Amino acid sequence: MEAVTARTVGLGILGHGTVGAAFVRLVQQQADAIAARSGIRLEVAKVAVRDASRHADVLGAVAVGDVDGVVGDPSVHLVVELMGGIEPARRAILAALAAGKPVVTANKALIAAHGAELFAAADAAGTDLLFEAAVCGGIPLIRPLRESLRGEPIRRVLGIVNGTTNYILTKMTEDGAAYADALAEAQRLGFAEADPSADVDGHDAAAKIAIIASIAFGQSVTASDVHTEGISRVAPADIAMARRLGYEVKLLGVAEHDRGTHSVSVRVHPAMVPRTHPLASVRDSFNAVVVDGDAAGSLMFYGRGAGGGPTASSVLGDVIDAAINLVRGAHASIGALVAPKVRPMSELSCEYLIPLEVVDEPGVLHAVTGVFAHNAVSIRAAEQEGAGTGARLVFLTHDANEAAVQRCLAELAGLDVVAHVGGILRVIPE
Amino acid sequence: MEAVTARTVGLGILGHGTVGAAFVRLVQQQADAIAARSGIRLEVAKVAVRDASRHADVLGAVAVGDVDGVVGDPSVHLVVELMGGIEPARRAILAALAAGKPVVTANKALIAAHGAELFAAADAAGTDLLFEAAVCGGIPLIRPLRESLRGEPIRRVLGIVNGTTNYILTKMTEDGAAYADALAEAQRLGFAEADPSADVDGHDAAAKIAIIASIAFGQSVTASDVHTEGISRVAPADIAMARRLGYEVKLLGVAEHDRGTHSVSVRVHPAMVPRTHPLASVRDSFNAVVVDGDAAGSLMFYGRGAGGGPTASSVLGDVIDAAINLVRGAHASIGALVAPKVRPMSELSCEYLIPLEVVDEPGVLHAVTGVFAHNAVSIRAAEQEGAGTGARLVFLTHDANEAAVQRCLAELAGLDVVAHVGGILRVIPE
Repeated sequence: MEAVTARTVGLGILGHGTVGAAFVRLVQQQADAIAARSGIRLEVAKVAVRDASRHADVLGAVAVGDVDGVVGDPSVHLVVELMGGIEPARRAILAALAAGKPVVTANKALIAAHGAELFAAADAAGTDLLFEAAVCGGIPLIRPLRESLRGEPIRRVLGIVNGTTNYILTKMTEDGAAYADALAEAQRLGFAEADPSADVDGHDAAAKIAIIASIAFGQSVTASDVHTEGISRVAPADIAMARRLGYEVKLLGVAEHDRGTHSVSVRVHPAMVPRTHPLASVRDSFNAVVVDGDAAGSLMFYGRGAGGGPTASSVLGDVIDAAINLVRGAHASIGALVAPKVRPMSELSCEYLIPLEVVDEPGVLHAVTGVFAHNAVSIRAAEQEGAGTGARLVFLTHDANEAAVQRCLAELAGLDVVAHVGGILRVIPE
Repeated sequence: MEAVTARTVGLGILGHGTVGAAFVRLVQQQADAIAARSGIRLEVAKVAVRDASRHADVLGAVAVGDVDGVVGDPSVHLVVELMGGIEPARRAILAALAAGKPVVTANKALIAAHGAELFAAADAAGTDLLFEAAVCGGIPLIRPLRESLRGEPIRRVLGIVNGTTNYILTKMTEDGAAYADALAEAQRLGFAEADPSADVDGHDAAAKIAIIASIAFGQSVTASDVHTEGISRVAPADIAMARRLGYEVKLLGVAEHDRGTHSVSVRVHPAMVPRTHPLASVRDSFNAVVVDGDAAGSLMFYGRGAGGGPTASSVLGDVIDAAINLVRGAHASIGALVAPKVRPMSELSCEYLIPLEVVDEPGVLHAVTGVFAHNAVSIRAAEQEGAGTGARLVFLTHDANEAAVQRCLAELAGLDVVAHVGGILRVIPE
């Protein structure tokens, strides 16, 4: 690679979609200001695009079709990976690191699946791999976890880390919309994709909370370690009951660390959040993450979790950092991650909201409460309302064990008088 | 100074009050975990206390009464200044930097008054001066502004940066308490000092927003550049009217940058915050700061702004960072600050809430509105209610110029029919 002369750092950008295009624009707008502040001039040296001819108008001679060519080009000192997906992104990043070129990536799926391998490759090469934009777009979160909170024992991280589902739940909460209608509106407004499953089934949130848990607890948690439930079974009536009890319903990513056993619980599911909790007032497509530390108390980081501008801004913050390190011959390291010790979901204990549709006849409540009783699940509150020919029963439990609750749900589904078991909500304590 | 051997970094701590004691405890608890994660062992080498004999039980041989002795001690590689006040803190920090020892400080007053001098001294010495804990205790804010948002053009920063006044305003809002009663309760609970003026008159917030403005905009703004109004003139009736209009009343630090003129407006005053704004739901003694950037959009950082634990956690994050830099021979720099170009308050334009106590007789409304009319201050909403022998009139203006509003207020105070002009509230737009 050519020497980094006069503190000019050439960027090789992989991908020119929404984020890539926003990033190239931002670098071009900000290059002078960055040079004045940091002494480093960023230059877009090469951009790898799928079809170089389609981007010739905006990128001129820097657009090339070949990922490997960009990574290996001697004018490229730093690689910015904005393609997404596992391959060829993973190979390209490993090749860049092996060549001593720092890498900045916004690739959530890749870091969630192969983070430990990539972090180790960066450490072995003595160069930077930064990925702030991979989690919650424009919100600075990974850096505070890596740096500001380095000396802080973190107990728990709770996050609204998916804007699409938060938008849908906000519509269901504030307008009483049914799930399907709120989803359709989100699709019409461009907040949800035509195939919304990555968002509504919780997979996007699972990848993000896996990365957060890895950094917060130093264990290589992957998305496959995350117990994941989506929002498709949440009913407006359950949201209404949660609100009467003083809660808002949110899809949360939860990562908890048990100091005694060094085990972690990492999960994504709809949850009841107390109205006084800072996450309760996070509306629409905004994201927010609460970090609970021993000394620092509860910290919240809030902002736009997606979109070209916010994500490009995050990428640029990392690029400047990596460029300064490159010029100085330094690099950041998150340290080695140990293998994850994941606590089984069956060991969880919390309060649950359990909605049932039942036939409306004598003895139903007695039959249903019998199932709770012999599974040792104690009831804190119950509501019944008519629902056509049947009735709707909603139970809020005291603290109960997940395995016992799951046995309850299976038995309830088998009762003749139960027409339907709804989606459960787990309660976040005050 | 002795060489930093085996990556052991000796800390010289100046001050052993609430934060100092919490910090020493946190270092002792976390030293092993920090060593495992970062490879650096932090050791409390010396602690400067006012009376070494009083602290002998907890600190043993490391407690000394002499600040200069601690800074100059060869076993001290890094100085942590937790005394507060201007002198001798300033001299001690300059001496440490001159000796090439990095400094971490939580000293808000010092950084707000002498930041530019101290930053320049750190740069000249090629070592770190970190001060995350000087602004909003445990909340990571300075680091995101310095690093994550380095490439982000910041338009505005709005913050609830004083927990005491936020606690008092929360009580006035939620319980309808009068200012004096809410203050007395805050004092009883230890949220406010016996002499509360630094908090309630806005001086503490002014020092914080001056530091924030300096880092966000690269200008050496000091507390004396900040237009500062406190909360003592805020009435529960005004808060109630603000709420009917869809706003919450908060004491805000505001820092705005005008791209065209490169001028900044930096001020502290009670403000009406739209209920949909993320700051509106920040209650009790919590702090939160919203950063509005061009690309990133609105980001909010939320947490405990004061207290031994949160502040010590922030200090420790900086200490680990500075220790890693020391071992690597690197340092962070915020770059040179230029002289501030402060826009006069008289040029401000916004909506205002203006409360008046008037005599209840014919022609009063006509006389009062005449003053608004000939000063070209246009009224958006008005409310009148009886108040004993007089009446209370509250006006919400359309966008108006600060100088015109101040002329209005002076003329209104001179009218025979006006018994009292209340404290104005400035409105934050949606």
